[in-house]
Amino acid sequence: MKQIYEGKTKKVFLNEKGNLVLYFKDEVTGTGEDIDPGGNEVVGEIPEKGLSSLAVTKYFFDMLKEKGIPTHFIDASPEEGYMEVQQCEALGLEVICRVKAYGSFLRRYPEFTQNKELEHLNYLVEVTVKDDERGDPLINDEALIKLGILNNEELDSMKEITKSVAKIIETELNDKGLDLIDFKLEFGRVKDGKIIIIDEISGDSMRVFKDDKTVTQKELVEYLLK
Amino acid sequence: MKQIYEGKTKKVFLNEKGNLVLYFKDEVTGTGEDIDPGGNEVVGEIPEKGLSSLAVTKYFFDMLKEKGIPTHFIDASPEEGYMEVQQCEALGLEVICRVKAYGSFLRRYPEFTQNKELEHLNYLVEVTVKDDERGDPLINDEALIKLGILNNEELDSMKEITKSVAKIIETELNDKGLDLIDFKLEFGRVKDGKIIIIDEISGDSMRVFKDDKTVTQKELVEYLLK
Repeated sequence: MKQIYEGKTKKVFLNEKGNLVLYFKDEVTGTGEDIDPGGNEVVGEIPEKGLSSLAVTKYFFDMLKEKGIPTHFIDASPEEGYMEVQQCEALGLEVICRVKAYGSFLRRYPEFTQNKELEHLNYLVEVTVKDDERGDPLINDEALIKLGILNNEELDSMKEITKSVAKIIETELNDKGLDLIDFKLEFGRVKDGKIIIIDEISGDSMRVFKDDKTVTQKELVEYLLK
Repeated sequence: MKQIYEGKTKKVFLNEKGNLVLYFKDEVTGTGEDIDPGGNEVVGEIPEKGLSSLAVTKYFFDMLKEKGIPTHFIDASPEEGYMEVQQCEALGLEVICRVKAYGSFLRRYPEFTQNKELEHLNYLVEVTVKDDERGDPLINDEALIKLGILNNEELDSMKEITKSVAKIIETELNDKGLDLIDFKLEFGRVKDGKIIIIDEISGDSMRVFKDDKTVTQKELVEYLLK
């Protein structure tokens, strides 16, 4: 297999079937010295964190498959640390779903979010351009369309999928006594008008609370898989 | 008359009829040392700049009135440097209409705007929260609604008014051999569901080119009023 890319948290290979094979690294992202799934820098390494991310991702991708939500997932071996996925054209966006008001959303609009910390936002979707250097700038619907990043059908589908996933993850976490605050998804285009979830769904891409305290990636694995 | 507010470019008084009276100052806004209507700092003072802004604002508000577009404008005396306007609740937003791709829009999404400088964007509307400290952060439609800043009817109306104004100003400037690049509007709420344009429409709130070179406020007055 040929390595074709190395990102902050994954190595990507191409296999003989023409599918991608993702190896999950132990690097964790954050801001400054703090671990924060929303952060853009690598701030350290946690042993077996890659395996945890992969196990949780497999857990959720299996669940979404069952519910008919399209993802790039084909197969995964958490023991061997890899996931096989369908190739597609990444849109270059991060789609954030804010289930409850927290973090950068409160900091960005302090005047309009007073006393709204942890208020349910009914699955508010924000789209950002994946661009570490510029801190993943927000982009609105009109700009997405006018710049030809998505057509209307794809944009509607992307938002609808995101909200459906939000409800599925929220219900699942609630069942385990956990609280979903926000998460991000990435999307790719399979063909014009048809988009699917790519990348991962793990503690690395979501903020989960238990009794108002952050649940770590490792704790999340315990709650979901043990 | 009682002064009730002093902003970067205006002083605001309340008159005996319960209307606001705006005095236009000679301060110009910019970024760093450059004059830039999109900038948030006061970078200097230009003699009679206040009068120029007011004259252009009156020119456009009169034109919008004729076309049935609602603004706070009641009357103005460019000679005495003031404008009388209707009181209303400011939404605290800046609505930017990008007629052609330029400036911060290109810088914000470099990957998706290559070779698109000055491409017509068909009156793309972006809404930001008026917040100098945070550089007027962009806000998307869902967040505007979920945070209760606007209802759906007001949001649609705000965008529709903005696009109408864009076409009116663009046509007017084209007639004078000028090119409208982008501009900003502010809005206020008169009553639930009914919003109107407030503040000003002048060289201070729009970027105008002639033969690919920036037209100054003073030049704009010459082109429009002489």
